[in-house]
Amino acid sequence: MPTTATATATPARGYTATKDQLQKRLKRIEGQVRGVHGMVEDDRYCIDVITQISAIQAALDKVALGLLDDHARHCVMGADEAEQADKTDELMAAVARLMRRG
Amino acid sequence: MPTTATATATPARGYTATKDQLQKRLKRIEGQVRGVHGMVEDDRYCIDVITQISAIQAALDKVALGLLDDHARHCVMGADEAEQADKTDELMAAVARLMRRG
Amino acid sequence: MPTTATATATPARGYTATKDQLQKRLKRIEGQVRGVHGMVEDDRYCIDVITQISAIQAALDKVALGLLDDHARHCVMGADEAEQADKTDELMAAVARLMRRG
Amino acid sequence: MPTTATATATPARGYTATKDQLQKRLKRIEGQVRGVHGMVEDDRYCIDVITQISAIQAALDKVALGLLDDHARHCVMGADEAEQADKTDELMAAVARLMRRG
Repeated sequence: MPTTATATATPARGYTATKDQLQKRLKRIEGQVRGVHGMVEDDRYCIDVITQISAIQAALDKVALGLLDDHARHCVMGADEAEQADKTDELMAAVARLMRRG
Repeated sequence: MPTTATATATPARGYTATKDQLQKRLKRIEGQVRGVHGMVEDDRYCIDVITQISAIQAALDKVALGLLDDHARHCVMGADEAEQADKTDELMAAVARLMRRG
Repeated sequence: MPTTATATATPARGYTATKDQLQKRLKRIEGQVRGVHGMVEDDRYCIDVITQISAIQAALDKVALGLLDDHARHCVMGADEAEQADKTDELMAAVARLMRRG
Repeated sequence: MPTTATATATPARGYTATKDQLQKRLKRIEGQVRGVHGMVEDDRYCIDVITQISAIQAALDKVALGLLDDHARHCVMGADEAEQADKTDELMAAVARLMRRG
């Protein structure tokens, strides 16, 4: 049965449910970066370029927060007790990097 | 004479001198975003994906800081006194957005 | 037996082990803020004041990361399954606020 | 006459006009840090402590942005041409530190 097969094949990675959504967001971000390239090509006003870069940063933060959330819910919670400490270390190191303190 | 022609054609935008370098960086960032898309496609470990997103954020911050620097040097300094107040408003609003407070 | 007494008195809050250390850091940060007040009083150079504010931000981020880490380890992991989802929501909302996206 | 003397002795630092306001904000921030110390003393819930730290970070960012703004307007714009390049270097380094990239 395909459904069962899919269910048992669920990978350890946590964000499976939103994989499509995540890839769509990343495609959009890729397009935004290409757009900034075009703005520079066309000698657009620096402040407008910076504003667009801020929008890309916000979109990337949103993707990263979604990944963190799924990691916390699936990889950390789902781990056995022995692994949870290591997984939490990884989680916090990732948070520190996103806060630009890692 | 090409030199003169180029000199008179200098646009208002400030980062002309490093336009090539800026576009190269943006191409590299676009490739990094595509790389993250591939990592998600391949069900790579969430923390590794987040680490890569942090690297993209750092690269974008560097581009934004370069643009701000050129804006401050060329657009703000080069403006006449009447314009400088407005240009400084724009500069500070851009800084606030990059600090995620705008 | 003191050991048992201490063990049973452990509060729900997670960072008990480092409560003293945390309070010392906060006292130091309070002193740094007072120092910035004095720098302004003495008409010190703006850039030096901003540098000192950046140092305070870094110290506060460190305190917040320590609290998050303990929250993840004690409050989230220690919660029963029914509570873990809510605790993780809280954790992620706190991370978003620290990343200035909340 | 002291008043006149003071007026002509306007210091190089840029934020004179709002010195009182700035000091009031710093006093309030100092009180907020003391409040966090009390929250830890009282074993308050970690997430509430972190929320309060985020509020302090926002208040400090606002102070830093105010100082940057005045620096840009007074110290950088007011500098003679020879000094402006150095002042702009300082400004951008301060922005990078506030963006946690310096």
